[in-house]
This record gives sequence, C-alpha cells and structure tokens, in this order.
Amino acid sequence: MASMAAVLSKTAFLSQPLTKSINPDFPFAAATAASVSFPSKSRTLRGGIRAGLIAPDGGKLVELVVEEPRRREKKHEAAELPRVELTAIDLQWMHVLSEGWASPLGGFMRESEFLQTLHFNSLRLDDGSVVNMSVPIVLAIDDEQKARIGESKRVALVDSDGNPVAILSDIEIYKHPKEERIARTWGTTAPGLPYVEEAITNAGNWLIGGDLEVLEPVKYNDGLDRFRLSPAELRKELEKRDADAVFAFQLRNPVHNGHALLMTDTRRRLLEMGYKNPILLLHPLGGYTKADDVPLSWRMKQHEKVLEDGVLDPETTVVSIFPSPMHYAGPTEVQWHAKARINAGANFYIVGRDPAGMGHPVEKRDLYDADHGKKVLSMAPGLERLNILPFRVAAYDKTQGKMAFFDPSRPQDFLFISGTKMRTLAKNKENPPDGFMCPGGWQVLVDYYDSLTPAGNGRLPEVVTA
Amino acid sequence: MASMAAVLSKTAFLSQPLTKSINPDFPFAAATAASVSFPSKSRTLRGGIRAGLIAPDGGKLVELVVEEPRRREKKHEAAELPRVELTAIDLQWMHVLSEGWASPLGGFMRESEFLQTLHFNSLRLDDGSVVNMSVPIVLAIDDEQKARIGESKRVALVDSDGNPVAILSDIEIYKHPKEERIARTWGTTAPGLPYVEEAITNAGNWLIGGDLEVLEPVKYNDGLDRFRLSPAELRKELEKRDADAVFAFQLRNPVHNGHALLMTDTRRRLLEMGYKNPILLLHPLGGYTKADDVPLSWRMKQHEKVLEDGVLDPETTVVSIFPSPMHYAGPTEVQWHAKARINAGANFYIVGRDPAGMGHPVEKRDLYDADHGKKVLSMAPGLERLNILPFRVAAYDKTQGKMAFFDPSRPQDFLFISGTKMRTLAKNKENPPDGFMCPGGWQVLVDYYDSLTPAGNGRLPEVVTA
Repeated sequence: MASMAAVLSKTAFLSQPLTKSINPDFPFAAATAASVSFPSKSRTLRGGIRAGLIAPDGGKLVELVVEEPRRREKKHEAAELPRVELTAIDLQWMHVLSEGWASPLGGFMRESEFLQTLHFNSLRLDDGSVVNMSVPIVLAIDDEQKARIGESKRVALVDSDGNPVAILSDIEIYKHPKEERIARTWGTTAPGLPYVEEAITNAGNWLIGGDLEVLEPVKYNDGLDRFRLSPAELRKELEKRDADAVFAFQLRNPVHNGHALLMTDTRRRLLEMGYKNPILLLHPLGGYTKADDVPLSWRMKQHEKVLEDGVLDPETTVVSIFPSPMHYAGPTEVQWHAKARINAGANFYIVGRDPAGMGHPVEKRDLYDADHGKKVLSMAPGLERLNILPFRVAAYDKTQGKMAFFDPSRPQDFLFISGTKMRTLAKNKENPPDGFMCPGGWQVLVDYYDSLTPAGNGRLPEVVTA
Repeated sequence: MASMAAVLSKTAFLSQPLTKSINPDFPFAAATAASVSFPSKSRTLRGGIRAGLIAPDGGKLVELVVEEPRRREKKHEAAELPRVELTAIDLQWMHVLSEGWASPLGGFMRESEFLQTLHFNSLRLDDGSVVNMSVPIVLAIDDEQKARIGESKRVALVDSDGNPVAILSDIEIYKHPKEERIARTWGTTAPGLPYVEEAITNAGNWLIGGDLEVLEPVKYNDGLDRFRLSPAELRKELEKRDADAVFAFQLRNPVHNGHALLMTDTRRRLLEMGYKNPILLLHPLGGYTKADDVPLSWRMKQHEKVLEDGVLDPETTVVSIFPSPMHYAGPTEVQWHAKARINAGANFYIVGRDPAGMGHPVEKRDLYDADHGKKVLSMAPGLERLNILPFRVAAYDKTQGKMAFFDPSRPQDFLFISGTKMRTLAKNKENPPDGFMCPGGWQVLVDYYDSLTPAGNGRLPEVVTA
C-alpha cells in the first residue's frame, strides 16, 4: 500500500495515552487573517473561514480509554464485576465511543439519551446547547444477564473469549422497545433490514447504559489497524498539515472516477472560496456492513490502487477508517456520519444521492427518497456548524470517454452505472467502460468476487442479474 | 349546561375578525412583584412567575381566517381555482391551523416542515430559534387531483358539498411517504392504528403544502360551537380573569373524581408556589377520536354534570374544546397537545400516565411505555418554556370511599379503575364504587351506552369483557 503508506507516513502514531481534552477551542472564538481576507467569498459558509479545526461536539473530545498507569488496577476491578458479553457489533460501538466519535456521549446510552435520539435525533446538554445524535448507541442484554447483574451499579464488558475489555459504571437498565426503535430509526419495520436482523431482532429485551471506561485501545489485528486513526489522531494529523478546511467523504463502496472527480472538484471550489489548504478526509466505513457490500479489506486494497493511480493527491488527502457499524438508515444515519466527522475535525461534509440508503427490503423501490438525506442533513439540529456540500451527479460521459458531471442538456450522452451494476459487472468479470475506474482498482474488485467460494451448487452465494 | 354556561359567560364571544398579532410579549420580558416575592418557591419552574400570559410559539399568534372586508373577494378568487376536496379530518386540521393552535405554522406543511416534524419533532425558524412540532399537519391528494392542479400555484380547498372553504397559495406538492410517516410518528407500522386507517392508508400518494387563508371561521353547528374558543379567545378570557398561571388539562375521556382531585390539587400547589390566580383550562379534545371512545357531545354533557356537582370551581376553570383530531401516537402526540396549549396561553401542562396512548393494535401490551410520554415531554425541543406537571396517580381508596392519591405503603387499600373498566361498567349498567364519579356524570355515561343501537344480533356493536 505504497500511496496510502505515504499518506499516512505524515501521521505520528500515538502510542501514548491521549489526554482527555483536545482542541477545546470553540469554532467562532477568533477571527483570523484568513477570515478577514475572504469575507465576500465565505459568506455562504455557515462557519466562515477561521483558524484551527472545528471544535468537537460539546466543546471537547471525549476519550474513554483508561490511561496506562491505571489499566492494571482497572483490570483487577473488572475481574470482580458481573459480566456482559459483547457481540462483534457491540465491540465496534464500544470502539466508536472510546475514541469520542460520538462526543459528548460518555458511554452506551441511558434511557434519557436513547429517547432523545429516537424522538429528536439530538441531545440537549446541561448548558442548554444541542448536539446531533441520530442513531441509538445502545447495549442490549437479556433477562438472564439482567438477573446476573442484580443490584450491582457496575459491570464488566467482556469479549467473546471472556476477556474484560471495559467497565460500565453508574449503570441504568431499561426496556428495549425493539419495534419502536426500529420504526423510529429506519422509518419502516419491514423484515429484512440488515442491521436489524444482525443486531436487534435476536438481541435482549433490555438495554444497559452507563459511563464507559475501555481498558485498552481497540485493535482488530487484521493488518488495517494502522489506518484506524482516532478523532484525536486525525486532528493531530490535520493540524500538522495546517488544514484550514477539512472535507469528509464517507464511503462504503469502491471509489470510481466519478467519486474522484467530485472530491477533486470540491477541493477546487474550496480553494476558490479562499481556503488555502483544504484537506480531503477519505473515510471508508470499517464496521459492520451487509453481506453483499464489498468487505473492508478489499475496499482498502481498491482505494490503494486508486491513490497509486494518482487520481487523488496524497499530499492533500488523508485516508483513514471510520470504525462505525452501518445501519442503512438513510436520512437518520447520514446525520451520524456527518456528526462523527465533526468530532474528527471536518467542517465540510459531502453528501450524495440517497446517503446510507438501500432498496426497500420488501417493496420494489428505494427505502428512502433519494433527496431526503441531504435535505434532512441541512436541517438537522446540532449540525448548524457543518457546511453541507451536496454531491453533483457524476456519470459516464460517452462523448468524452470518462466520468463527468451530468449535463441535463444532453442526457443521451451519459451512462449511469449504479453500485449494483458495478458489482454485477465485476462479479461477471466484465469490464466497465474505459475511464469509469482505474484498471488496477477494477482488478481488485474482480479478484474479490473471484475469491468468493462458490456455494455447494457451484454458483456464487448470491445470484446476480445484470 | 348551567355551570358551563356560567363559566363561559365570562367570555366575550368575538364576532369581529381577530387582529393578526395578539400578545406578542415574550415570556421573560419583565419580572413582577409576584416573581420577586416568591423566588425560593418558584425556582423549580422553568419560566418563573411573571406578568402576562406565555407568548405564543414564534412570538405571535398565527390567525388565518380572512378578515371580513376581503371575504367576498377571496371567495371569488377561490371559485376560479383548481379544487381539492377535504375530508372531515382535513377540515379539523384546517380549523386547527386557522386559529393558530400550530403557530407559527401558516398552512398545511411543505416538505421541509414535514421532514423536520418527522425527524426532529420541531421546526427551526428563520431567526434560528426552535418551536415544537411533533405531528405532521399535512394534506394528501391523489394522482388525479395532482393532475387537475397542474401548474397552478394556488388551489381552493372545498368541503364535501363542494363549497370553497379556503385558499392554499404558493403550493408545493411532494411525495407522501406513508410507511415512513407512520413509522416515525407512531413507532410502529402495525395494522389497526385508528388514525392511520381513517386518514392515511387510503389517502392520496402526494402531499400539498402552502400558505392557508380560510374564508370563514370554522363552525360545526352541532350545538357545541360556543365551547370552541380559539387561542385568541382563550387568551382574552384568561387575561380578563387576570390569570397568572394557566394549567391545561387535555382529556378525551369522561372526568372522574380522580381527575378532579388532581386538578384541585394542582391549583393548590400553584397557590403554594406563590401564584395568586391559577386558572384551569379544562380542554377536552374535539376532533376525530376512535370508535370506542365516548363521543364529544356525551363527554361535554358529562363534564357539565361534573361542574354542576361542584367538584371543580367555575370561577377558576375555563372549559373549552380543543379542535384537533386524535392520533393516539403517545409520546409524539403529547408534545403536540402541550405545544398547542402554549399557543392558547397555558404555561403549565398536566401530563398523566401513558398520554395519548392505547393498546398495541396487534400485540397484547400497551403500544407505549407508560412513562415515556412525560419523559419525552420534559426533553422536547421547543417546550422548554412550558412547566410540565406529572400526574400523581389517583385511585379509589377503599378505606376512605373516595378517589385519593395512591399511597404505596398500603397498596391493598386502593382500587385502580381503568378507562376500559369504567366503560365496561357503564356499558353493563353497573355502578362504580361510590365516590368514583358524581352520580349525574355517571348517568350520562350509562345513557350514552344505552343510546347505542344494538347490532343485528341484539348485542352491542363492541363485545365487552370486564
């Protein structure tokens, strides 16, 4: 991964425990020379041009990993507590919480936070201010686990091998209203929602919230941990690069030249607005994804090829993995994707058509209106500080033989290649039109589908139609 | 209706058009002698004690009835416009909008308001402030109506006889995402939700929003119009009475002595806090209710008997009808019930167990957690100015032979009589324990069930089990 290594060589990997409060400056604290120089160009920006990175939600970045001197002591404490075993997805959320992606949330949600998330997609803080929080970050337990906890006010969270990984304190146990949680988060209760089937349907009937202390930084030992920069590490890297605008691009699919065009064009627009050093945070989602998405390791290989190909400039791009699991909850989830990136220092967020969307699990239509994501994002409480950049539609321009912004005056010249179409071509070892994706990146996709073990009947696990 | 007439004789019924802006004072405008006299007692109140009524949401009360001099002209305009026929429930919402219960909403919701309501239960105003708005107030049209409207920017809303009743201007037509609307409003999509079956399932696939002008004040000519005071009329009445605290009690059921105890006790508590003249707004819901609820006309008769009985003091009680239809959407709907009462001048809101709740339409359980309503209400954006008064649980105290606040130290002495139980007793012409409800009020209920025409099989339309 030469290019990505190059990109990341600029990052000083932190082996020391992180301090608790990082970059507590508020976003409008001080006008800078830059903000004075470009007032007319920056008037469309909600935050304006200013020095320093955008402040984390709640003013300071939450970090919940126990610092080294106290780890031993905390592990001893954990050994004495009632145990709650975490699923793989629970561990991913614990990772998310531990690094402050959900700042100012300090642990799995108590009922008050859960209800505010379900009803208002936001949390009101003690000072009356509001932060966005659209997706419940909760931990389910069953009757038996609840009985085992009894009157204890603390529990140890353990991994699937029974090793304690965290302590949850001042706990609150409350009912897990699954149907209501699903309806209010997804806007449907139709069977077949991937996250629901994976993580909710068979989960316990209780939720346990509390203050989280994680005993060690979370590692997956899959060769990709070096790409998993925490918000604190990203902020350090972005400050080192002297970024005056950080634009985040969330993705869970291979990067094609339409994406690349969009990212390059966004940088150009930010420079035009008067920013001196806009940095792209190319931020693939690394947690749970549904079975027919391309797995993280293959996506990372594909992203590497795209960077090698020189379509994106390593000097102005940071590639890192966002550890959150995927809900596929459309307009609700896109708020989470945006909010988490504020905590990592991004003040611009690129939003596309139907973000975090999918087909309706039962009906023959998209689950969400393709435009609702960007509309909801632009109205969401707690995201007022974030500049939303709607995606311009890119498609394959047959007259130029490359990806270009769609020109509605000559629709016949454009070819739309959906994610499904792209996957189908790669599965069938067909080539997309030249200029759709760099050849090295495309080969990774073909190799991925080639690597899938055919099912017993000699066919691919999933039947593919073009 | 002697007592109620007495209560209402204090109201100057307004036959003149109302001015557009009423009581624009903001809630924290001025401290009064009262607020200085009782600071220690009032510290638990979010608004404190102050002069004047609470300001309407958005600072001024919206009123959308065309003033007399322009009605003729507007009616001529309406006659030329494409027509949208309203259902009975649409007309009730038009009524609600026309009088400003939903202030600052100026008409049926456009998509931006609809999405904010679904996702955030609130609307952000141009000045950045937030008002609560939890229930979509929308108007559905079908493909044929949409085609008929064509490119017109205005439509006439007509009643079931085809008479124009309003004009909707600067219209926006957008998709009606029924499943998502239901899931996000009710937290379930189970079949059998009364409002959904009545007003959504068979409604059109489009929603039409715009600025509303209603051609005449809405009247139902059912003998109860004199009880339908608008927010402006209520404010006038409350100001005339010099109310320094207004506590609203939403109900859609007959009043029993437990309710009366609660209302009397609330007044006592407000006096203790230092208020000089707390006024009760006894505010039965008058719009659509489900088939097994007691109809409005019978409820009003029952309320009359309760007032005659002297349990509630007419001097400190205003009885009026709240024209909204009922959603039975629990924690989502209770916010609407509270928000609308702010617009009518109430700064205290009494909230009970499981407000706006009902049984799950499919499963054998309540649809909502009984405590979620009051919790969600206390956290709801835009309701920070309203003082939420949680219901104390009243039950029949067998040792005293009357309704009393439940004493958990002697549970065996108390009898809980649910709404279902109450209806069952009345249907079967059985008497509740003495002291549960005044005899005159109880007789109204018995008469109501007696009046129901038995179905063909000689049984009541609904099978009743005790």
